[in-house]
Order: sequence, then C-alpha cells, then structure tokens
Amino acid sequence: MTSFDLTTPAFLVDRSIVARNCARMRGKARESGVAFRPHVKTHKSVEIGRMQHDGSASAITVSTLAEAEAFAADGFRDITYAVPIAPAKLPRVAALQSTIDRLNILVDSELAYLAIEAYAAAHDVTFDVFLKVDCGYHRAGVDPENPDSVRLAMQLGRSERIRFQGLLTHAGHSYHARDREEVRRVAAEESACLSRFRALLATEGLGETRRSIGSTPTLAVVDRFDECDEVRPGNYVFFDAFQATIGSCTLDDVAVSVLTTVVGSYPERNTLIVDAGALALSKDLGPDHVLPQFGYGIVCDLDLRPLPMRIAALSQEHGRIEMSHANVPVGTQLRILPNHSCLTAAMFDRYHILDENRVVDEWKPVRGW
Amino acid sequence: MTSFDLTTPAFLVDRSIVARNCARMRGKARESGVAFRPHVKTHKSVEIGRMQHDGSASAITVSTLAEAEAFAADGFRDITYAVPIAPAKLPRVAALQSTIDRLNILVDSELAYLAIEAYAAAHDVTFDVFLKVDCGYHRAGVDPENPDSVRLAMQLGRSERIRFQGLLTHAGHSYHARDREEVRRVAAEESACLSRFRALLATEGLGETRRSIGSTPTLAVVDRFDECDEVRPGNYVFFDAFQATIGSCTLDDVAVSVLTTVVGSYPERNTLIVDAGALALSKDLGPDHVLPQFGYGIVCDLDLRPLPMRIAALSQEHGRIEMSHANVPVGTQLRILPNHSCLTAAMFDRYHILDENRVVDEWKPVRGW
Repeated sequence: MTSFDLTTPAFLVDRSIVARNCARMRGKARESGVAFRPHVKTHKSVEIGRMQHDGSASAITVSTLAEAEAFAADGFRDITYAVPIAPAKLPRVAALQSTIDRLNILVDSELAYLAIEAYAAAHDVTFDVFLKVDCGYHRAGVDPENPDSVRLAMQLGRSERIRFQGLLTHAGHSYHARDREEVRRVAAEESACLSRFRALLATEGLGETRRSIGSTPTLAVVDRFDECDEVRPGNYVFFDAFQATIGSCTLDDVAVSVLTTVVGSYPERNTLIVDAGALALSKDLGPDHVLPQFGYGIVCDLDLRPLPMRIAALSQEHGRIEMSHANVPVGTQLRILPNHSCLTAAMFDRYHILDENRVVDEWKPVRGW
Repeated sequence: MTSFDLTTPAFLVDRSIVARNCARMRGKARESGVAFRPHVKTHKSVEIGRMQHDGSASAITVSTLAEAEAFAADGFRDITYAVPIAPAKLPRVAALQSTIDRLNILVDSELAYLAIEAYAAAHDVTFDVFLKVDCGYHRAGVDPENPDSVRLAMQLGRSERIRFQGLLTHAGHSYHARDREEVRRVAAEESACLSRFRALLATEGLGETRRSIGSTPTLAVVDRFDECDEVRPGNYVFFDAFQATIGSCTLDDVAVSVLTTVVGSYPERNTLIVDAGALALSKDLGPDHVLPQFGYGIVCDLDLRPLPMRIAALSQEHGRIEMSHANVPVGTQLRILPNHSCLTAAMFDRYHILDENRVVDEWKPVRGW
C-alpha cells in the first residue's frame, strides 16, 4: 500500500510524468521546426528546466528577474523575461545580460522604449527587446490594429541601442475556454494575429520579424505549431485540474499533487478538515467557469484515484472537505491535484520528487523577485 | 515626495501602526484581566511576536509546527499549536515540548485522543492538550451539544498522560459578518458557547476549565473581553482591506501594503498592468460578500491615499487594474492594501519595515510546515 513518510502538507512531483509531458511538447516543437523556449515559471526549478530540454540548459522564458538570475547562475545562457519591463529594473537587466549570451526583455509602450534608449545611451549598452502584442487576451501588449503599434515596432527595429527580437504574444484568454474546440479557436487567433501584424510591418520596410507565441492550452491542443517561429509553453510540465478540465490534458498527465493529512473528521456534518489550507493550495478557484463550485482541487487517495469529495473552503492552514459520508479517520493521508499548479508549487520551498510513488529526491524552487 | 528604492513587488510593514495595533489589543486584554496569547500566523516574524508582548517573548499561538520551532529557537517558551493535531506529528511535538515550558496541542476527536494516550504511554511523556470546540463556525471542533463531546472532555480531564488545558474555540464565522453589529452577535456566541459547555462539564465533576477564544473581528469590536480566560487574536497586528470593510478597524489601522510598479498602461482599454500578481497578493477575494467585485486589494498612492482603481484580475506576475482614465505612466509606483494580510504576507520571504515611510529594517518570516 502506498504511504509517504513526510511532514504534511508536502508537494509531490512525479518525475516520469514530468519527463513524459516535457518530451511530448519538445517533440512537437522539433517536428514543427520552430524554436523551443519553454517557460520555467510553473516550477522555478533548475532541475526541471533541464528536463524541458532533455538535459541541456537551453533557451528558457522566465517570469521574474530572480528566476533569470538563478537559472543564469546554473548555466542557462539564453533567457526571455516575459513581463513588460519596469524602467527601474534596467540596471539589473544590464548586469545580468553581461554574464550570459542573451536576456530578452519586453516592451509595449513608447515610454518603456524611451527609458531603454536613455539607459542604453547613458551606460553604453544594448538590449535585446521583443515587442509584446495583444492577441485578444487584453492583459499586456500593444493593439496590433493601432497605427501607434506599428510606429513603436519601427522605433525598435531601427534603434541602434536595441537588437529587435521580434513579436511576442500570450493567448491567456485560452484559459477562458471551456473545451478543446474553443481553445483551438484561440490558438488560431494567436498565430494569425502575429502573422498579420508582421505583414503590416513588412510593408513598412521591417524585414523578417520573429513571432513568439505561448500558452499551454493553445500549444497542447494543436497537433503542430504553424505560423510561428518560437513557442513558450510553461504549465504543461505539471498540468493541473484546470488544464484537465478544459481539455489541455487528461488527469493522468497531472504530475503534481499536495500530500495532506486528515486532522478532523465530522460525520455529523459530513465534513473533513485536512492540513492543506490556502497556504498550501493557493486560493485559485480553478475551472469554475466550466464547473461552478468546482472546489479548491481534486481530492484523491494515495494512488491518485479521485474520491467523491469536494474542497469547499480554505483558511490559512485548514482545508474543509465536504462529502456524503465523512467516515474517514483522522490521520488518513490524501493527495490533492491542484487547481493551478503554478500557484500551488510557489507555496512550497521544496518539492519531493517521486519515482513510482517513492520519494527519491528533493528539489528547491527559486523564490521572490 | 514619497518614493521607495526597492525591487517590486515588495511587502511594506509600517512599524508604528503595528505597534499601535499591538498596544490596543494588549491593553484591552490587560484591562479585562484575561490571559493574552496572540497568534503569530499573520506575520510569522519573531520581531513582531515580541512587539505583540511589548518586547517580551511571552505566550503565543501558532498555526504550524515550523512556526513553533522557529519561535521556540528565538526564546518563546509557551506556545499553543492551534490546528487539530495529526497523530503523525506527535514525535515532533514531543521533541519540541522538551525544549520549552509548554506546547499546547488541540484535539477534537476520540481517535486523536487515543493516539496521544498511546504515544505518551509508549514514550513515557505527557502532553498539554486543549479540547477544540465548535462555536458555530463548523470548521474544526466538537459539537458542544453532543454528549460525546462531554465524554471526550472527561477523558482528557481524567487522563494521567494529559495535562488538560481547557476549551478552545475560534469564531471564524465572524468573517461572514457584514458589519460591527453582526460581528458583535458572533462574539457573544463565541464566549457564551464555551461558558455553557464549561458549566455542563462542571456538573460532570470537571472543575474550573479554562476558556480560550479568538478571532480578530470578535476581539476588535468588543470593548472588553468577558466570559473567557484567554484571547488569541492574530490578524489585528496588520489588519487588511477585509477587516476594514467589515468594521474590525479603519483603513488607517492597516499596517501593511504591497509596493508595486506600473509596467503597462493602456488608456485605450482603461487598464493598467502592475508587477504584483497572484504570487504577490494571493488570490483572496476579500470582502466580496459585502462588496461584490471588490477586486484583489485597495490601490493607493505612495502616501496610502486610495485611488479610483480596481484590481480586476490577477495572473501569476501581472495584476490588471481597471479605472476610468488610465493615464498613469509606466514606471509609476503604487501601494496596494491587501485583502487578506495573512495570505499576502506569506507570499514574501522578507518584509521591509517602515518608519515614517522610510525603510529602516528588513525582517524575515518563518516559512513552510
């Protein structure tokens, strides 16, 4: 019988599922003939960063400069920092890029572009810069239909202080989809949007412009990556309850779980309390746009068979589970497939690495900013 | 003009507001003649633990054994671990309690009680144990109306391996209240429930039983602590947007904020993007039972004046702010009062301590379990 001699809550990572998820996405990129620059924000672990590239410290995408610095220190030399740059962070970018081959940064405003020009001139450095484009998510990025966006692209392309790296977008609105069909529509938009904008820039005289795309749902549901030059998936290494629900993966592809212990059992109110609360799971509501009242994760036994239980509420260190017959004794261990593995992983200072349900290693993610 | 030379996002703690919040709650406990055992889970910082006791390492409550161990190592010798004990954690409890004066643990089931008896007998140790009582929150705790609860209390009271410490409850349902009046009703229930149960135990022959209560809303709104022997407030050191909204405090009492930088400004869609996302703020929805669509915190300028902005969405490292005229330039710093300071504080490895808006120190909270 499976059991774990670990302090709970604990974050478990099944290494062979991660390897399988990594191989599938990497293979698809190779067969499509596009560059592969996976995101490391989901795991923030240098060990898993190498698994994404079958052992090598190749090109990656990061969500914080702390990740960039830690991965650079571990030998990763080609990094894209995929959040629009704050001008105050340029000194840190300049310091780090001088130690590696390339640190790409993002801009989506003239103000940030001017700040880069000014810093570069004052310190006699150059920067590698992508233009962030909004392909419909409406979070960050320039509007590709707006003439100002063309003007900004031309400024980047013609700057002497900037090595223009191309167009970058993220179809985060794929997370609003309810099934694979809807995700496929978003995927088509994501690629087409950059191709259209690139064609527009070509008419202005800006030559071949690289198109970098990336979101796990859009990259998971398509069979091949067309109309792009680079892909940047992240969540696919772990997947989670959300991705399985919208069809990016099956539950068997979810590589991570939170090990927890039942600390209260209340048959009279049909509830259990487990020692995984908001600080272990995060308060992400999961795929509640598809399944309202989804709960804060999928409760499973130690062999990852889903149980008829719902995590109805989280406080700081308590998870409250509802079920029809709460006859589970105090002390029982359970495993919870997280709603959003990126946020859940970030709650833990260490990951317990499993090989066939035995703990074989412990890896530490990067933290902070 | 106020400005901060810090990497964003950063967690700012105003030391004088913390001191004022601490003094007020401590003074009320002293004037009420009840024991004061504040919770440290909100801040997890030994420095603030001492501020709660005006400089001394006196009695505290913790939410994890990691907190208990770290505070014990710093000189705190009287600790209550206020989550029902998992039997597998008893060896750690036994090891820690042997190094300090007292480590109280909680039970609310016969199974946990029997596990304690068995461990204590096998290792020839004794444990300090509270009975956790449900005063209406229906998270953990025994039902005080159930005869089995009386039986369990009598087992604890008569055990030779257990020093019975009394009854402990937490009126977490005060967080469902919408204003001070509703909180006051919960506060009355919280105390009355334990007093009634104590009277019942007295008729069974169990003498004076200590009553320990605690939730920041209930303890903040009453003028004095009646019908109890000990109070365990926690959130009051920092307070937050939630507590201010239900009336536990005013916005001026909120001692913490997340410093963030505008990294995207999109007047055409009336949004800003800041570099405080779900990993800086947590995805706590705040007081949305009072103010639907509250957003993920209160956005303020650097002098903490609230701005007409709403944090509409959080992804991992992006916060999306909606406003009517998004004419705020990239690079602008903002301060966000968090919805739930306990969860937000836990996202940070270090706190920047402010004295009159100048950073004067850096404190590190305990992490993990």
